[in-house]
Amino acid sequence: MQRDNSSTEGEGKVRDVDALRAAFLDSMASNSTSVHVVTTGSGDQRFGVTVSACSSVCADPPTLLVCINTRSPANAAVAANGVFAVNLLNVAQRGIADTFAGRSSTAKPFDFSCCTNTAGTLGVPLIDGAVAALECRVVAQQVIGTHTVFFGEVAAVTRAPVTHMPLLYCKRDYGQFLAF
Amino acid sequence: MQRDNSSTEGEGKVRDVDALRAAFLDSMASNSTSVHVVTTGSGDQRFGVTVSACSSVCADPPTLLVCINTRSPANAAVAANGVFAVNLLNVAQRGIADTFAGRSSTAKPFDFSCCTNTAGTLGVPLIDGAVAALECRVVAQQVIGTHTVFFGEVAAVTRAPVTHMPLLYCKRDYGQFLAF
Repeated sequence: MQRDNSSTEGEGKVRDVDALRAAFLDSMASNSTSVHVVTTGSGDQRFGVTVSACSSVCADPPTLLVCINTRSPANAAVAANGVFAVNLLNVAQRGIADTFAGRSSTAKPFDFSCCTNTAGTLGVPLIDGAVAALECRVVAQQVIGTHTVFFGEVAAVTRAPVTHMPLLYCKRDYGQFLAF
Repeated sequence: MQRDNSSTEGEGKVRDVDALRAAFLDSMASNSTSVHVVTTGSGDQRFGVTVSACSSVCADPPTLLVCINTRSPANAAVAANGVFAVNLLNVAQRGIADTFAGRSSTAKPFDFSCCTNTAGTLGVPLIDGAVAALECRVVAQQVIGTHTVFFGEVAAVTRAPVTHMPLLYCKRDYGQFLAF
């Protein structure tokens, strides 16, 4: 692999292995995403984890994907349960995002008492007030490096009023969408 | 499958098959995304397509994914070439997004003359001014419904100045990120 002297701080092309990893992370941090909490399980076996790596895949059949670190307890739980929900958080739910990311300063990490929630059609927790909560059955999964990509076929959708807007994350800040 | 009378227009739970598809699409439209152009090929065999379905996967090794409709010429080209670039468009590049989405009112669809671009380390076109352009080698792919999910290990990163902000798309409008 060619090497050059590009800094990861500035502009330019980066190919050195360590610098490449840093530049990848910085580039992905510039990639504004909505903030999702993936939930699974029920009762005291509920798990939730905040993810930004979530994407629609196709509409026929309605399918999405989420990427979850293999070390997250939610990963094993989704694999075991075969079902999960993607909760698209609204702009007022930053505290919930922090809790399920394990970085809240006030709530216990991953504690469902940070939010009101309701069991969905598939029995998984749906976070009240989410812009949308999509309940999915796992139809495929693939391990890539440190993460598992779970493909979920959507079985039910619960939606908030259309006025709800999603919580965004970009350049390590929370924020919101501003239309041109 | 249970049916109810939920409208796809408003809030509530949706499970009817046709309504489910519409609710899925509306929910995903509420999912603010950055706007990416996936490019591949060289010379007069260049292909580019605008996608919102792009996600980081893991940092070790640096890997991302893109979902491309199997009917897009770019899909076959990425599969044949085994390399592609993800160009994260900046807020000023809406016209480029429209062109590579095939919906420009002024430019020919998918015409690279809509932008200045430079061949990258892997020979694929990098769009000048993009917040980041990530050159990838395909390491895995999976067909899900109408789309192929291409997993790309990042080989090189080209970045614009950190002041560049990404172009966003949410609720069928372009826009930008506004930090709280």
